[in-house]
Amino acid sequence: MRRTRLVDVAAAAEVSRATVTNALNGTGRMSAATRTRVRAVAADLGYRTAPRTLALSVTARGGLQWDFLSVHYYAAMVNAATAAAHRLGYGLTILPAGITAWDVPAATGALILDSPAEDRLAEQAAQAALPLAFVGRPADMRTAGWVDNDHAGSVRTVLDHLAGQGARRIALMAGDCTDHYTRACVAAYRDWCRENSGYERVAAFEFGRDTAGELLGGPGRPDAVYGIYEDMGRQLLAAADRNGLRVPDDVLVACFSEDPSYALTTPPVTTVSHTPQAGGRLAVEGLVRMIEGGVRQRPTVVPTRLVVRASTLRNRPDGERRRPGLSASPP
Amino acid sequence: MRRTRLVDVAAAAEVSRATVTNALNGTGRMSAATRTRVRAVAADLGYRTAPRTLALSVTARGGLQWDFLSVHYYAAMVNAATAAAHRLGYGLTILPAGITAWDVPAATGALILDSPAEDRLAEQAAQAALPLAFVGRPADMRTAGWVDNDHAGSVRTVLDHLAGQGARRIALMAGDCTDHYTRACVAAYRDWCRENSGYERVAAFEFGRDTAGELLGGPGRPDAVYGIYEDMGRQLLAAADRNGLRVPDDVLVACFSEDPSYALTTPPVTTVSHTPQAGGRLAVEGLVRMIEGGVRQRPTVVPTRLVVRASTLRNRPDGERRRPGLSASPP
Repeated sequence: MRRTRLVDVAAAAEVSRATVTNALNGTGRMSAATRTRVRAVAADLGYRTAPRTLALSVTARGGLQWDFLSVHYYAAMVNAATAAAHRLGYGLTILPAGITAWDVPAATGALILDSPAEDRLAEQAAQAALPLAFVGRPADMRTAGWVDNDHAGSVRTVLDHLAGQGARRIALMAGDCTDHYTRACVAAYRDWCRENSGYERVAAFEFGRDTAGELLGGPGRPDAVYGIYEDMGRQLLAAADRNGLRVPDDVLVACFSEDPSYALTTPPVTTVSHTPQAGGRLAVEGLVRMIEGGVRQRPTVVPTRLVVRASTLRNRPDGERRRPGLSASPP
Repeated sequence: MRRTRLVDVAAAAEVSRATVTNALNGTGRMSAATRTRVRAVAADLGYRTAPRTLALSVTARGGLQWDFLSVHYYAAMVNAATAAAHRLGYGLTILPAGITAWDVPAATGALILDSPAEDRLAEQAAQAALPLAFVGRPADMRTAGWVDNDHAGSVRTVLDHLAGQGARRIALMAGDCTDHYTRACVAAYRDWCRENSGYERVAAFEFGRDTAGELLGGPGRPDAVYGIYEDMGRQLLAAADRNGLRVPDDVLVACFSEDPSYALTTPPVTTVSHTPQAGGRLAVEGLVRMIEGGVRQRPTVVPTRLVVRASTLRNRPDGERRRPGLSASPP
C-alpha cells in the first residue's frame, strides 16, 4: 500500500491541488460544502497533513517563571490569538514563561508578548530567520513591526480624568520591568506631572512587598493612584481599607485591567482596557501574512478604553453625590 | 566554540545534572533562589533547552472546522490546561478543530477533548504510542483513562430541580454528536422520563436550524427545557420571546454553560457548570504523570455545579413569588 499523496486527493475530489491544500488548512475561498467534501475525501483516502503551528511566548520578565495566564489580559490575548490562528489553519503553542530557548524547527512563526530589553528569545528567532511578530513594542529591535496600544495617550487620559475629579497628588504604581509598556507609562506620567502638577511619585511594585500599603500609609500620601498592572486595583483598595482611607472620598483608585469583576468590587474600580481581543487577532493575522506572503508586519495601534466607575468619581464640591447611574459603565 | 552541555551548567552552578534539568523545566523541589541562579548560569553559558510540548485537540465534531474557543467551557478548559502545563514545564499546542493528523514528533503527549466514535486522531496517537489523555470519556477506546463529569447524575439533578418547580413536560435540547457527553445526557434523560413522567422529547440541535423555535412554537410544547450546549439558554430565551412565552411563568429554561453573563440575562438563566478549571488541570497533570512516570491515567470524576437562577424558579401555587435572594447564586 503506497502512501496517499496530495495529487491523489485532488484527483479523487476533482479539484486542484491548491484547493486541497486550502481546504485542509482552512485557507482560501471556497464554499463550506466544497471544504467539507475535500476534507472527507482526504480522510477517506487516509491523507494526513498536520497543521502548521505558531509559537507564543511572554518574555516580559526574562527568565522568571510566572503564571501569566492568571492575568486576564494575557488570558484574553492568548484566547484571541489562538482563535485567529485556528481560523487561518494554524495551531498555536503557548510556551511557559522563563524558557531559555525556542524549539525553532517545530514552529512556522513566533509571537512575542511584551518583549523586554536584551530578549534572548527574540534574538534567537531573528538569528534563525523565524518569522516574528510582537505584541507590545519590543524594547530593543527598533526596526521590527508590532501591535500595541498608545500607552502614553492612555496614561494621559487617565491622569486628566483623575485631575478632573479634583486629584492634585496623583501617584503611579508601576514596576521595574524593562518592557516597552512599563517604560512608556512611566515616561508619560513624568511628562504629565511636569506639565500639570508639582507632585510626582512612582511606586515600584515588587512581588511580596506591600507597595500599595507603603504608598497609602506613608507620609505625603497621594490623593489618587493609577496602577498599571492588573492586580493593583485590588491591592490599592485593600491598602486604603487598612489605612482607614475611603475610596473615592480620600483617595481615587484606577488601574489597567481586563478583569470584569472590577465592576463588582466595593467600590467598583475604574479600569483601562487594552482590548487584547483585537491585539491578539491582529498580531496573528500579521504574522501569517508575513509567513505566507512575505509581507513585513507594520506598527499597528489598537484602541484602549477607559471604563469609569465609582472609585474615581468623587463627591462634588457642594456635597452632592453623583447618581449611581453615572458611576458605572458596562464592563 | 563548542556547544554548552548540561554537565557544564551543572559544574558552573555547583549542582547536580538533575537539578539543572529540574531548574530549567520548572520541576523538582528547590528554592526559588536556586532555580533562578541555575537558570541565570545556563543563560550565561548559552545553554539552550526548548520546553517539551503537549498537543491539545477538540475532536467532538470530527473533520468539521469550528471555533471551539468561542465556547466559554473550552476557553476555560484550555486556559486551565495551559497553565497546568506551564507549571510542569511544558508548552501546550492548541490545534484547530477539523485537522486530519497530528504532528506526532513535535509533541511529547496529547490531550483529546470530547472524543467521538471512530476518532482518527485518537487512533493515530495510539498507533504512534504517543501518551494520550482524554477529557470527556472517549466514545470508543473503552480501556483508556479519562477526566470527566458525572453527566448522568448532573442531568438527573437538573430534571429533579425542574420537576420540583412544577414542570411536567420537560424536553431535552441536545445534538447529534457522537461524543460521550451528548450520548450520556440523552440516555440519562430517557431513563429519567421513563421513571418520572410520560413526556419525552429530545430536540436535536443543528447549526442554522431554529431548533429552539420549533420546540417552543410547535404543538405539545414542553413546560421546561434543559439545553446541554452552552448557547442554548440564549436560543431558548429568544424563542420563548418570539412565541410570547414568559420565562419562568410559561416555560422553565436551564442550560449547561460556563458563561458568567447568564447571570445578567432577562431573566438570569439557571446553568450547570462542569468546572473545566479542575478538569483541564487534572487532565494535564495525569498526562505528565504518564509521560514522566509511566503511570496510566485513571478515570477521574470532576464535580458539576448547578447554579439556580430566576429562569427555573416559578411562582408558587399560592401566587407568592420567591424572593430575589433565592433566585440568584454567585456566577
